[in-house]
Amino acid sequence: MTLDAVLAHIDAELPKATDRLLDLLRIPSISTDPAYKADCDRAADWLVEELNGLGFDASKRPTTGHPMVVAHNEGTGPHILFYGHYDVQPVDPLELWDTPPFEPALEDTDKGVVIRGRGSSDDKGQLMTFVEACRAWKAVTGSLPIKVSIFFEGEEESGSPSLVPFMQQNADELTADIALICDTGLFESAVPAITTQLRGMVTEDFTIKGASRDLHSGMYGGLAGNPIHVLSDIIAKLHDETGHITLEGFYDDVPELTDEMRSQWQNLSFDHASYLGDVGLSVPAGEQDRTPLEMIWSRPTCEVNGIWGGYIGDGFKTVLPAQASAKISFRLVGQQDPDKIHNAFVKHVKDNLPSDFTVEFTPSR
Amino acid sequence: MTLDAVLAHIDAELPKATDRLLDLLRIPSISTDPAYKADCDRAADWLVEELNGLGFDASKRPTTGHPMVVAHNEGTGPHILFYGHYDVQPVDPLELWDTPPFEPALEDTDKGVVIRGRGSSDDKGQLMTFVEACRAWKAVTGSLPIKVSIFFEGEEESGSPSLVPFMQQNADELTADIALICDTGLFESAVPAITTQLRGMVTEDFTIKGASRDLHSGMYGGLAGNPIHVLSDIIAKLHDETGHITLEGFYDDVPELTDEMRSQWQNLSFDHASYLGDVGLSVPAGEQDRTPLEMIWSRPTCEVNGIWGGYIGDGFKTVLPAQASAKISFRLVGQQDPDKIHNAFVKHVKDNLPSDFTVEFTPSR
Repeated sequence: MTLDAVLAHIDAELPKATDRLLDLLRIPSISTDPAYKADCDRAADWLVEELNGLGFDASKRPTTGHPMVVAHNEGTGPHILFYGHYDVQPVDPLELWDTPPFEPALEDTDKGVVIRGRGSSDDKGQLMTFVEACRAWKAVTGSLPIKVSIFFEGEEESGSPSLVPFMQQNADELTADIALICDTGLFESAVPAITTQLRGMVTEDFTIKGASRDLHSGMYGGLAGNPIHVLSDIIAKLHDETGHITLEGFYDDVPELTDEMRSQWQNLSFDHASYLGDVGLSVPAGEQDRTPLEMIWSRPTCEVNGIWGGYIGDGFKTVLPAQASAKISFRLVGQQDPDKIHNAFVKHVKDNLPSDFTVEFTPSR
Repeated sequence: MTLDAVLAHIDAELPKATDRLLDLLRIPSISTDPAYKADCDRAADWLVEELNGLGFDASKRPTTGHPMVVAHNEGTGPHILFYGHYDVQPVDPLELWDTPPFEPALEDTDKGVVIRGRGSSDDKGQLMTFVEACRAWKAVTGSLPIKVSIFFEGEEESGSPSLVPFMQQNADELTADIALICDTGLFESAVPAITTQLRGMVTEDFTIKGASRDLHSGMYGGLAGNPIHVLSDIIAKLHDETGHITLEGFYDDVPELTDEMRSQWQNLSFDHASYLGDVGLSVPAGEQDRTPLEMIWSRPTCEVNGIWGGYIGDGFKTVLPAQASAKISFRLVGQQDPDKIHNAFVKHVKDNLPSDFTVEFTPSR
């Protein structure tokens, strides 16, 4: 069988494939830090050269940020698009690294040999599995069995600002029958996962404003409204007692798990007690009628990620602040529409604003 | 009549009395800033010298902070104690001052001649009215009509840490039939007030703790409890829909206004619309069954003065923070016991803590 031959070839060539990955890992392509702009560019060049060497028609494509890498390999049958990213997160604080982040090395562990190095598991390791799969198939059979396109970006770790505009401008070229995303993880270190769904996100940065200036609680306390109280009340009312999110229509476009998927998940040995125990918790805190695995894999969420207002230094200042702020994010699933969720949140805030108070929403990026 | 003669003497001597006050105002006795320690000491010395010059037995009394000034004038009849403070608030930001804060000057305004200078209305101006009253009475009659003690501290603007210990250590000396506090204000610029009640205060700095470390909302969102949500819920539940504070027994020791006082207050031309309008508000936000003047003069309050938790910088970080904090203060009236209110608040927080969460109370000073 062809597949067996390809897999055998991959095994035989593993040391060379590993060396290639280590080469890519040595490039410090930190997208968020302008100091590494040339390195991001170099990572894109490295990938273009690699893909052209495999017979792809690969090119580096400029954006207002870091370049895209787009490569095509003609073929018959369905057209498949691979997505991944070549950029990595910053490495601070450096003192917490046991080995230099951009000097990747193989290391023996209890769980087998692993590669230590920034980007090995997010996302250079994953994207190279696609590249090496194409290489092996071509080596064994001389060609790929379908039409393959590859699309790597260099801004995933800094918000992907160029991604959607680039896709819109190149929609014809990037349209495929199926898209595979390789920016995912294992279920456990020795249990690979086929990820069939990811959660989307909406973020909001908002400020509740009351009086025109900070007030003294001795002069105004009990009479003037306090924006921290208003903000707390708005946040408290986002969830009901059973852990459900109260925004109007929030669950309208959330699909139920299919029986098939539910049964697959039940067969996974997910130990929520140890998952929570690792971080000092014991009780699932979300929707009370959902299993812990559903909560993190298939259910939408609403979490306040930051809050601030009034005097937050040492000691005390009996201020009634003029404003108070929070950052909130929603993780979305199924057919939930980010704009609809945003609007429902805006309505929730406005419906709970007392007289004299206003709200400002600030784009978070 | 003696009183008329004394008042006439005060009027006649007003320029000299004003000069003395200006002398005291020139001393930058900022108690909270160690750079002004010698100036606080100098203000105390100035007062001791002034009071000894009037025939008081006055002395500067050391504390672990700034010194107290204690002065006695023997006499018959009831023993009266005057309290005031010679320290002032910091003056930053300096650019908002039209004149140098420690170069006091008389200024003609729409409302008459006023003294501009730090401390003129808090509390050097007020405490000198006591001193000048004693001076005038002695000048006209040769002696004071009752036994008078004077007690000035230098730490009122930085929390009065030495006040209670000093009073306890010198209880016999400071016990009087009546104590008059001069650290109060006017009702309006041309309407003096006899302040018959002040609100006390309890402050709490508290932190809600959940997981043992910050979590990623993509990994734990919807499953792990969020301390910001817990904190918001605790704050939201401190007041009910009618603006009442929900702590157990909170109003037990709060007296109702007497009919006499209510009638006096109703005769005051307090314009809450303009009081709130000055700071951009229009609707009284406190207890819905109380008048605005009651709210700020005779009712206890519960206000969150600061809140913080999670990521509060630019942009976004989808963190579920390990903890979230707030500073809260209660203004107390009547016979409300600070310890009892503190305990009721602690109970409120603990009653509303979900599983896995803990709370830490930090003394705010």
